[in-house]
Amino acid sequence: MSSRSIYRTLRPMLSSGLGTGPGVRGHIISHLPTVRFLSSDTSSPANENKQAEEPVRTADGKVISTYWGIPPAKITKPDGSAWKWNCFQPWDSYKPDVSIDVTKHHEPINFTDKFAYWTVQTLKIPVQLFFQRKHMCHAMLLETVAAVPGMVGGMLLHLKSLRRFEHSGGWIKALLEEAENERMHLMTFIELSQPKWYERAIVFTVQGVFFNAYFLSYVISPKLAHRITGYLEEEAVNSYTEFLKDIDVGKFENSPAPAIAIDYWRLPKDATLRDVVFVIRADEAHHRDINHYASDIQFQGHELKEAPAPIGYH
Amino acid sequence: MSSRSIYRTLRPMLSSGLGTGPGVRGHIISHLPTVRFLSSDTSSPANENKQAEEPVRTADGKVISTYWGIPPAKITKPDGSAWKWNCFQPWDSYKPDVSIDVTKHHEPINFTDKFAYWTVQTLKIPVQLFFQRKHMCHAMLLETVAAVPGMVGGMLLHLKSLRRFEHSGGWIKALLEEAENERMHLMTFIELSQPKWYERAIVFTVQGVFFNAYFLSYVISPKLAHRITGYLEEEAVNSYTEFLKDIDVGKFENSPAPAIAIDYWRLPKDATLRDVVFVIRADEAHHRDINHYASDIQFQGHELKEAPAPIGYH
Repeated sequence: MSSRSIYRTLRPMLSSGLGTGPGVRGHIISHLPTVRFLSSDTSSPANENKQAEEPVRTADGKVISTYWGIPPAKITKPDGSAWKWNCFQPWDSYKPDVSIDVTKHHEPINFTDKFAYWTVQTLKIPVQLFFQRKHMCHAMLLETVAAVPGMVGGMLLHLKSLRRFEHSGGWIKALLEEAENERMHLMTFIELSQPKWYERAIVFTVQGVFFNAYFLSYVISPKLAHRITGYLEEEAVNSYTEFLKDIDVGKFENSPAPAIAIDYWRLPKDATLRDVVFVIRADEAHHRDINHYASDIQFQGHELKEAPAPIGYH
Repeated sequence: MSSRSIYRTLRPMLSSGLGTGPGVRGHIISHLPTVRFLSSDTSSPANENKQAEEPVRTADGKVISTYWGIPPAKITKPDGSAWKWNCFQPWDSYKPDVSIDVTKHHEPINFTDKFAYWTVQTLKIPVQLFFQRKHMCHAMLLETVAAVPGMVGGMLLHLKSLRRFEHSGGWIKALLEEAENERMHLMTFIELSQPKWYERAIVFTVQGVFFNAYFLSYVISPKLAHRITGYLEEEAVNSYTEFLKDIDVGKFENSPAPAIAIDYWRLPKDATLRDVVFVIRADEAHHRDINHYASDIQFQGHELKEAPAPIGYH
């Protein structure tokens, strides 16, 4: 059984609401007894002895009233330390497939391909002029953009599936997984560098423009939208390759990997920034493939739902 | 190890891209050898012997070209039959907790509560007049609406997390899981009844209005939006309770459960419509709690990310 599945065994225990019990491979998951307190629920008898009950608190000790009174589960890692992250759980972590071909390129064939390709090439110029070799800043801002297409595509396919009363072929999940994964890249980089005020301003503006532009292009032509994302991901792979080069020649300090990255990609304790950038590049290469594939399917006159989506393909 | 975790062990095998191998508890997962064909990828040597390779086909035999050439994984159930569904995978299925209190009600306290409550009560009137006791039609159209708030909330929190370079506390995933789950309810009902043209027209219009209205309300006041969803879910629970009553008194035929429902909720082979409506009502009750909880957190001046989201809580 792979480590991924080991982690997945945590989930049922977590959602079972059972009391403290031994986990898997030394993981311990414990729940406080399910109680209701400071409750706004007026129908439950549990309210009668509200006062006697212990409240749930935030990290900084502030009391959180809860309507339904299920305290957060406590997960500990094999070494006994607490599972630190709420933004992802052990079963969301994985060992990336780094054997993927990072040099692969989709040659623009028809007009849509060429339009997508040259759009990305044009956008690249100011980006490269702005960042030059400031890799950390580049990576951080890149991820705030890279996490948008998956969410837009997933949402639009979800709404389409509801409107048309039809199955999605798994593409909604695949695209939402892509967005989650890109967001985790960002969560990793912010452990290493905090954005400056003007970087925040740029992200705010770029998101406003890019979200709407991508939303519109996905509504008009999903195959164009997926092709654009495919090319964006090709460029992401290239920029991470440059990042790796500069780490290797010592132009960029190969600092230790942040804890969140070690837990998310199941890296060794002594992993470095290079290891992190290496797995992130592999993720981007997988997204490149998924999006070019999605575009290919539609170029051949099929709908996405006709071809099963590559779920769990990182 | 629970059945959920058993299913979860499939995932790593699935994404590992290995050849045919025995699965867990009789599940067999097989991959065709990884080949590239009709490929638009120009950098890979695999293209040289393209002609020799077998193409991936859709269910109806149409050839699907794929850029990256990983054929869809084949999963078989313990009885040897193929896993039929692309819109969800074995590890997305679960045994719902039906012990949840379906009578619970959040008493409106402040103005926002009352506004949310009376908005839902007002919307209820035309809905009840229109559907009366046409439960199947009601359920189907209800789910096309119920699947919207989770997606809107998840997407807006995702964009916020990117803009602010901050963690989500797991709420993005929790809300997207809610949306996925509601969509699965719809996928279940369309196995039992096909929407008529005017029902499709209604859904088309209602989605256009509701998506934008909910989007706007979530931007203006997330705590109001979550409260509205909480009350919508309370009404969903009520309408499924009515559905169950009519099945029990024989006013509505208790037909066999559709195959998709048996696989998604891990129901017995001889499950009936009543069993399906029963677990769907439990799902709605869980969504009711999550949304009232989300609203409570914000009413106390906290941000969602401060209180870990109830992940995997169905």
